[in-house]
Order: sequence, then structure tokens, then C-alpha cells
Amino acid sequence: MVVREKILDMVVSCFKRHGAKGLDTPAFELKEMLTEKYEENSGLIYDLKDQGGELLSLRYDLTRLSFLTYLCEVPFARYLAMNKLKKMKRYQVGKVWRRESPTIAQGRYREFCQCDFDIAGQFDPMIPDAECLKIICEILSGLQLGDFLIKVNDRRIVDGMFAVCGVPESKFRTICSSMDKLDKMSWKDVRHEMVAKKGLAPEVADRIGSYVQCHGGISLIEQMFQDPRLSQSKQALMGLADLKLLFEYLTLFGIAEKISFDLSLARGLDYYTGVIYEAVLLQTPAQVGEQPLNVGSVAAGGRYDELVATFDPKGHKVPCVGLSIGVERIFYIVEQRLKTSAEKVRTTETQVFVATPQKNFLRERLKLIAELWDAGIKAEMLYKNNPKLLTQLHYCENTGIPLVVIIGEQEQKEGVIKLRSVASREEVAIKRENLVAEIQKRLSGS
Amino acid sequence: MVVREKILDMVVSCFKRHGAKGLDTPAFELKEMLTEKYEENSGLIYDLKDQGGELLSLRYDLTRLSFLTYLCEVPFARYLAMNKLKKMKRYQVGKVWRRESPTIAQGRYREFCQCDFDIAGQFDPMIPDAECLKIICEILSGLQLGDFLIKVNDRRIVDGMFAVCGVPESKFRTICSSMDKLDKMSWKDVRHEMVAKKGLAPEVADRIGSYVQCHGGISLIEQMFQDPRLSQSKQALMGLADLKLLFEYLTLFGIAEKISFDLSLARGLDYYTGVIYEAVLLQTPAQVGEQPLNVGSVAAGGRYDELVATFDPKGHKVPCVGLSIGVERIFYIVEQRLKTSAEKVRTTETQVFVATPQKNFLRERLKLIAELWDAGIKAEMLYKNNPKLLTQLHYCENTGIPLVVIIGEQEQKEGVIKLRSVASREEVAIKRENLVAEIQKRLSGS
Repeated sequence: MVVREKILDMVVSCFKRHGAKGLDTPAFELKEMLTEKYEENSGLIYDLKDQGGELLSLRYDLTRLSFLTYLCEVPFARYLAMNKLKKMKRYQVGKVWRRESPTIAQGRYREFCQCDFDIAGQFDPMIPDAECLKIICEILSGLQLGDFLIKVNDRRIVDGMFAVCGVPESKFRTICSSMDKLDKMSWKDVRHEMVAKKGLAPEVADRIGSYVQCHGGISLIEQMFQDPRLSQSKQALMGLADLKLLFEYLTLFGIAEKISFDLSLARGLDYYTGVIYEAVLLQTPAQVGEQPLNVGSVAAGGRYDELVATFDPKGHKVPCVGLSIGVERIFYIVEQRLKTSAEKVRTTETQVFVATPQKNFLRERLKLIAELWDAGIKAEMLYKNNPKLLTQLHYCENTGIPLVVIIGEQEQKEGVIKLRSVASREEVAIKRENLVAEIQKRLSGS
Repeated sequence: MVVREKILDMVVSCFKRHGAKGLDTPAFELKEMLTEKYEENSGLIYDLKDQGGELLSLRYDLTRLSFLTYLCEVPFARYLAMNKLKKMKRYQVGKVWRRESPTIAQGRYREFCQCDFDIAGQFDPMIPDAECLKIICEILSGLQLGDFLIKVNDRRIVDGMFAVCGVPESKFRTICSSMDKLDKMSWKDVRHEMVAKKGLAPEVADRIGSYVQCHGGISLIEQMFQDPRLSQSKQALMGLADLKLLFEYLTLFGIAEKISFDLSLARGLDYYTGVIYEAVLLQTPAQVGEQPLNVGSVAAGGRYDELVATFDPKGHKVPCVGLSIGVERIFYIVEQRLKTSAEKVRTTETQVFVATPQKNFLRERLKLIAELWDAGIKAEMLYKNNPKLLTQLHYCENTGIPLVVIIGEQEQKEGVIKLRSVASREEVAIKRENLVAEIQKRLSGS
């Protein structure tokens, strides 16, 4: 709980740093979102039949990032269309309840945590897109999850690549969904699926194979511009031009070395229209000797320029780009790490403890602690008339309170208060009237 | 949304200042809480039949504070019993979903906001109780809702008063529930209900009447100690002794003048065992000439020492005292006030805007803004290659951003940046390398 709260606080403060306003989009019913009628009309996601049970199970797996992204971007797009908004920068962070299954009439609700940031509006190319990648970098660095990489591709490059390789247009979606498995399966197995299961010509699959194994930086973009096959596709060239501009902005942001242009990245969701990205942790933060944590991607997103129009009666377009942070996964990683380490997590934020070594100092303690509270200082004391000093100091050690204020007979006589550091056990006497100022000085210094 | 977030932030920071840890108690199903079986077993609240439809409707009125308190204290007590916890100081703030009605099989869920603080554990008398009242004062003062008063009574005084006035024990609950209406009805009407509807002897009602119209401070407590009738009740004397001690602590906390001992206060919930309290606003913060806002109480709580034992198979007792803040009401008051005033609420927290007066400065702006973000400064810029300066300055005025950083040809030549205050329109040139430090200095000063 405390760990989760700290992670969410950190994410929210990053979203606010980028000027986003908090907005809860009205909760969508999964049922409504998943009825085939709804989908056929809007064509939002892959054909249900395409992947057999797999996609269906993905839909109810609320820990899958692509599903989480979907659950947030679709309601956001609908919200923009319903309210005729042309521009907005918003985040949504917090607990959400969704009906678990649409088939059970009396569906149970399941709680999960959502962390999204989106920029809607018609702007000059790649500026908001670059900001989204900057935000992912800031959050993953800030959470100290270890080294990470953000894979970037563009939906137009994916489609262009399929076209020039000779994939029939009717097979784009199903081949795209096979490609999406490359993070868990080898190219050999994916190729087998494409050829044996999905009836792709072997030479077409091999052409795709020559691309999807490529990843790199700006030089790979330049190389693809010269690629005799890919450069035949106007779509792909548009995607490449945007990625080139994106990399220029990412360099100015100082994060280009964290980004990898990866031709195997497809992203499961059908409504992406431009740049797509997915962040993966490079080394798991588990202890040496432990099994590495397989956590999949921890953030993802992309550009979806057509989604708002599908909800607008007049079909007005509002271009959008956004990202989802996979906080459920991040919670898991951080909690696993804490379990294997000896690190103790504080469950409170108390800064100062008010103690006494003598009997009959309850009233003095009450006056003192009220003064601290009124100055905005987080303070605690034991709810006992005459607690033992050792009990009080143990309480501070056990709960991680860094400072102790001690008031006793001698201090009262001299008009002072003792201020003790729990870690160093050092004590200094401070004039009663300077106490709050001294504590504030110490707290701001640490 | 922004207003609500600020109010909740303020409440949470107060709870944390008092050393509480955040804890979500597992969501209770209203259905489960309201089945008569459940209630008869635990005897938690008034007999359903007692008040006819009134209590039933109260139960589903999620804006009623007593209902909100109930929805939080009962799950908290159950949580303590289930986890065999003897001690805990916790808060719960946030959105909660509850099934709206237990009778409809496919119940809809309704969202509301919960704000509770509770202290569980066996401690020396009235110390945690006094802290709860201090917390209510800090929150209501901090939210600047205008003048307020906290009515205080003790459940043992209520019961003792009924006994010495001659109320038959079988009528305690129903008479208590009539008394609870004194904040909305005159004594005359309440007396009529007691006598005509509930069959209380008129002279008994008159005896009650002589008490419930009393309210005051420590002197009223002293007076009640001497009261020939009330002092016959041992229960009442115990309650009075605790209130006397409580007032002593409240004086040390500097809040005694905000507290009124009020013999008419009953609090609807049956599980309270000691001190009870309810905060009311004395003057509504509405504009002059407006209808005063009738908002009822804005915070309430009390001591419930027996509730945990009702959930514990072995009946172990864990004394508790707690409070609920009526945030839904507070949201309403603040939102009404904002509507009638010209005050503009900022929807973002952006501190600095990065602008340029010339074309072709996108790259410089991107480098600059990344520097600000990396320093933790909340910053925005327009997502345009060549925005007009006036558009950029208007954006700051409209969204309330206080500072503008301006970079143009001249500044670049001189190695400086212009820092502009939006309010005063003053501009100063600052060395490029000192920019972050200067902004941080200005922001911490304001």
C-alpha cells in the first residue's frame, strides 16, 4: 500500500510537471466495449475470430499492458468526441473498477490501477510524441527500475513493410498479430505460424524476417530510407520521415540513447495510426542468484489520430498521442525487490516524535505536539500518561522516525528542549522558542 | 475535479501529519451489511422497523454523514478483528464503489468519496479522542470553510440522562433516534414525536427537554456533575469525568473554544460507546444576498470500543475512536462558493512557460524545457514550430502560469534568457546557466 502510493505519487507528479490536468473519463463497461456489435462498427481491435481464444483471454487479463492502454484510450477518445473537445492534455491515475466478464449477467467487478497520459489536438509533427517518450524516460528513471529501453516503430512502416514484402492486404491484421509475439517467441516459431497456420508464402515471410530482426538508432532509419524494397512504399517513407524528426527531438531532450527503432514492434491495437512505442526493462532488479523476473513491457503507447472521429457523429478528427504506465507490473517488481532485500519500508511519514523521560509530562507533550502539528510538522507521541523512555525510543527506531524531541524536568527548568537524532543518537539542547524553526531547518536540509 | 483533488490532498496531508498510515479496508458489500440477518446478529444499528422508512432511506443516502461513517468504521473494525490487530492508526481517503441497493440483483454501483481517520488500541483515556478533535479543527480551518463548532457529548451521558429521566430501557433507542433530529426539528416537534408517536410520558419528555437544550463549555460539565438528577447515574458521571479530561487536553491543544458540550447530540449509530462529536459550519461561506447553504454537519465521529469484538470469534476487544470528514458536502460548498465568485480555478500546476518571439527556435525551446523538467520544474510550451509571441503570452494568462522563459536571437547572442513575470509583465535577463537556480529561487519564494 505505502509502496504503491509512493509509485503513484511519483507518476502523478511527472504528469503534472508536463502540464497535464487530471481527468477521470467516465468508466466504460467492459461489456459495452466488448460486444461484437460495438467492435464491428468501430473496427477498433482485431477480429475476434482471428486469434481464437488468445485475444479473448487477453481482453480479460487486466495485467496485460495493451489491454490497459485500450481501456483508457478508447474512453478518452469517446470523451473528447462527446464533449466536442479539440485539444487536451490530461492524465488519469487511480483505481478503476471494471466488470470482469461480459457473459455473466451478474458480473463481478475487479479493481485495477490505471496510469495514463494523453495529448489531444492538432499540432506540429512529433513534438507531443517526443514529449510522451520523455515522460516514459522520466518515470522509469525516477522509479529506479534499472536500465530500460524504449522500442519505437511507426504503424505506417509496419503496413508499408507488409505491402512491399507481398502480404495480401486481407492478411495484414493477422500477420501483424503474429509479429506482435516476437517478444516472447523466436522468429523461427513466428515464421512457422505465419506460413503454416496463416497461409503466408514462405518467401514473403522471409522478406518480413529480414526486416523484423533489425533494430538501431538514426543510422537504421537512414538505412531504411535507402532500402530498395521499403522505399517503394510511400506510407513507410512518411513513417520514416517522422521517426527521423522524432529522433532529432529526442536528442535535444537528451534521451536518444534510450530509444531503439525496432522494426519488429507492432503493438496489438488496431487503432494506432503513427508512431508506436513500448518500454522494456533490460535487467531485472532481482538479487543476484535469483530467478530473473519476467515482467514484459512496463510502459507503452502510440499515436491514434482516427479514434476520436469514430465516436463523433460528424466524424470530426482529433489527433491523439498517449502512453500507459504498467503500474501493476511495476508494483510487482518493486514489491518483489523489497521482499528479497532487507530494506524496510516506512508505513508512515512521521518526522518528529515527542518523548519524555519523566512521569507527569503528558500536558507538556500535548502542548508541544500541537505546536508541531500547527507548524505543519508530522509528529507523533505515545498515547500514554507515563511511557518509559526506552519504549518511546524503540518506537522511533521501529517506525523509522528520524528526530525525537525530549522534554523533562531539567529541560523545563532551563527553558530548553532536547533534539535527538535517532540514527546518530546525538542530542542537542535548543531553546524552547526556537524548536519549530530548528526542526524545519533540519528537515529541509535532509 | 481540480478543486476536489486539492481538498483531498489537504485532508490526506493532515492525516499523515498525525502519523496515520493509509489503508484501504476491503470493500464491504452494502448487501451484506444491510441484510437483516447480519444486523440482528451484531446489533450494529437501529432496528429497521423502528423508524419506518426513514432509516432505510438514510442507508442509501450516501451523502448522509452518519451513513458514510458507518460504511467506514464497520469494515475497519472487521478488518482489525480478521487480522487480529490490537493497534493501528490509519486513514482511508478516496473513491469507493458501493452497490446502490441490495434488493436489485444486478445492482448498479455508485461512486462516492470517503475520508476517514481512526485510532485503534488500548490507551490512556481521552488522548486519542482529543487528537481526533484536533484533526477535525485542523482540516476545517485549513479548508477555510468559515467559522465552525464541534458539538461533543458522550454516549454514556445520553444513556444516563434517559435513565434518570425515566425513559424505559426498551425505549432508549427509539427516543435516541428522535433526539437525533434536534438539528433539523424544534424541541416542540421532537417532544411531540416522543410523546404522541413513541408513547413517552409527557413529564419524562419534559425532563429530557430540560437537558437537551443545554450546551456550553467546561462550566456546563461542572454544572452537570452537580445536577441532582444526572449525578444519580454512574454511567453519566463516567462520561462527564472523561469529557472534563478531554476539555483539559483540548485547552492544551488550543482548540477548546471551538468545542461545545451539547447534551442534544446523540449521533445515529448504535455502536458508539463513549465520546461522540459532530462539526457544523456556523456561517455559510455563500456570498451576501445569497440563500444560505444548508449543508448539515461536515465532520463527525466518536468512540466505538465494542465493535471489533462483534467480529472476533473469541470476542477480543479493541477500543477505537475515529472521525469521518464529509467531503462530498465540502466539495459542494466549495464548488458553490467558486460558482458565485469570480475566482478562477487553475486546472494545471504549470510554473513556467517556455516561449520565443522568433521563428526557428523550436530546438532551443525543446532543450530548455527538458532542462526544466529534469530539474523538477513544471513547464509547458506550445507544440508549434513557430508560434506567435502574443499567443504564447495569452496562453499563460488564460491558464494562470506565473513565469515565462523567453529565448530569441538576441538572448542567444548574449548567452542569456529573459524571465518574465506574467502578473507584473516585468522582464529580467538571466545568464543561461543560472536559469534553473533562479527559477527555483523565485518559485520557493512565492
